[in-house]
Amino acid sequence: MASQGDRLLVAVSGGKDSLAIWDILDTLGYETEGLYVGLGIGEYSQSSARFAEDFAGQRGLRLQTVDLRAEYDYDVPTASVQTRRTPCSACGLSKRHLFDRAALEGGFKALVTGHNLDDEAAVLFGNVLRWQTDYLGRQRPVLPAGNGFPKKIKPLIRLSEREMAAYCVIRGIDYLVEECPMAEGNKHLHYKASLNQIEAESPGSKQAFYFGFLRDAVDRFGPKSDGGEAADQDSAANDQSSGLVSACIDCGAPTNVERCSFCRLVERSRGAEPVPVQLIRKKF
Amino acid sequence: MASQGDRLLVAVSGGKDSLAIWDILDTLGYETEGLYVGLGIGEYSQSSARFAEDFAGQRGLRLQTVDLRAEYDYDVPTASVQTRRTPCSACGLSKRHLFDRAALEGGFKALVTGHNLDDEAAVLFGNVLRWQTDYLGRQRPVLPAGNGFPKKIKPLIRLSEREMAAYCVIRGIDYLVEECPMAEGNKHLHYKASLNQIEAESPGSKQAFYFGFLRDAVDRFGPKSDGGEAADQDSAANDQSSGLVSACIDCGAPTNVERCSFCRLVERSRGAEPVPVQLIRKKF
Repeated sequence: MASQGDRLLVAVSGGKDSLAIWDILDTLGYETEGLYVGLGIGEYSQSSARFAEDFAGQRGLRLQTVDLRAEYDYDVPTASVQTRRTPCSACGLSKRHLFDRAALEGGFKALVTGHNLDDEAAVLFGNVLRWQTDYLGRQRPVLPAGNGFPKKIKPLIRLSEREMAAYCVIRGIDYLVEECPMAEGNKHLHYKASLNQIEAESPGSKQAFYFGFLRDAVDRFGPKSDGGEAADQDSAANDQSSGLVSACIDCGAPTNVERCSFCRLVERSRGAEPVPVQLIRKKF
Repeated sequence: MASQGDRLLVAVSGGKDSLAIWDILDTLGYETEGLYVGLGIGEYSQSSARFAEDFAGQRGLRLQTVDLRAEYDYDVPTASVQTRRTPCSACGLSKRHLFDRAALEGGFKALVTGHNLDDEAAVLFGNVLRWQTDYLGRQRPVLPAGNGFPKKIKPLIRLSEREMAAYCVIRGIDYLVEECPMAEGNKHLHYKASLNQIEAESPGSKQAFYFGFLRDAVDRFGPKSDGGEAADQDSAANDQSSGLVSACIDCGAPTNVERCSFCRLVERSRGAEPVPVQLIRKKF
């Protein structure tokens, strides 16, 4: 996924997975920097920011921060209402855009996320339940760079949530244990619960499900990735480029329409009356 | 799936689905016959046989019966112990073999089974969890005849378990409500429960999962079926033929080894001390 000497940008939330992978990469000698996105989800965001900052401060690591309200004049609860997206959708869109841009502008070799086996299995479950063939073809632990996207890697895919929590305890990493208040009741958590039941009945099921997919199924849904270097920026092997034809007229990000989803979300949300988190929890 | 005038063999268990599809096909004017396999699962089998016989008797339909103990000197509980298969595996193998043979020998146009949407979605779930690509490529509602297999059709795939139960109530069909005592705790029932939870949270999920698979995924796993006539008995389009190279030296059934699984199961089980159902329930 990465080679010694690579400069890596770590997407940091303040939770166990992102702090653990940052700790691991730093320990292994990679040159890393963190990026934290302030989503404006009330106390949850304040507290997750503190965990991220304390971790970086204690280890002398550099942490960039982008605050949605300060820099773009919106937050996730407000964008969710303004754009009629679920909070998780508004959040995911914002984070993907900002992480991708920071990785490219900072000249990083790859963007690292802390997705673990439970995360990937649950995402796969959701993609399979609706046979979202585009998403299935792109659900790979390494996506090469290309056509306006940075290389992306997920080094924790072999490890479970519990293993990551145990790692943090052993390494003395303080992290935000609380789940995001806006994720309550979302499908991803239901899928995790279903898979946990299946795992309890047949241990090894999650591993077999996700790695069986990578071994026997993913190539049936999308072009093969070389899993390594981002040498071939224009090739059809670049999964991230599928269907994309141009650059956003506002920000230059890759898009298949005139303006990218992020710019449209910002335009519809910016300056709107902030919506309190509690209100959203009732809505979704 | 079938045309007026087709002679159809219905696989009958005495449960709601098989009696309902038999009733439907008979009402629609198809020439039908039933086949019931006596599995030797204690009172459960005695009682399911009665429901099948009563149904056929009341409607003047012809019901063939194959009794495993009387004709092959074994039963499912005993075969399960002797062959170290789960009861559901010994049962499925026996039924598939006997239904296939009866459909071919009787010159029927197709073998009809009562699998409903819940059944198919649960089987699909199990196949996807382990990415059993061969099974996925063959999980189609119509399998054309070929290479020693009869055509097989599943007309109830659009209907749920509850709809089939309601149909039986409305039509005054008495059926065995009890689940097979040996299926207790099997994976298929766990998968049904998982899908029921997901369905409760997102109504329509089962339908989207199964029909999305047929629309967007099944062809990625196996050769296309024409979904209709069994015209091309030797073509690669015949899913049932995959990997089969010869006929069983004992019974002539298609197999990829010398003797088919059914003949090997019978050989290992026949004449063995009968195992009471209760014992098996504890074992699995």
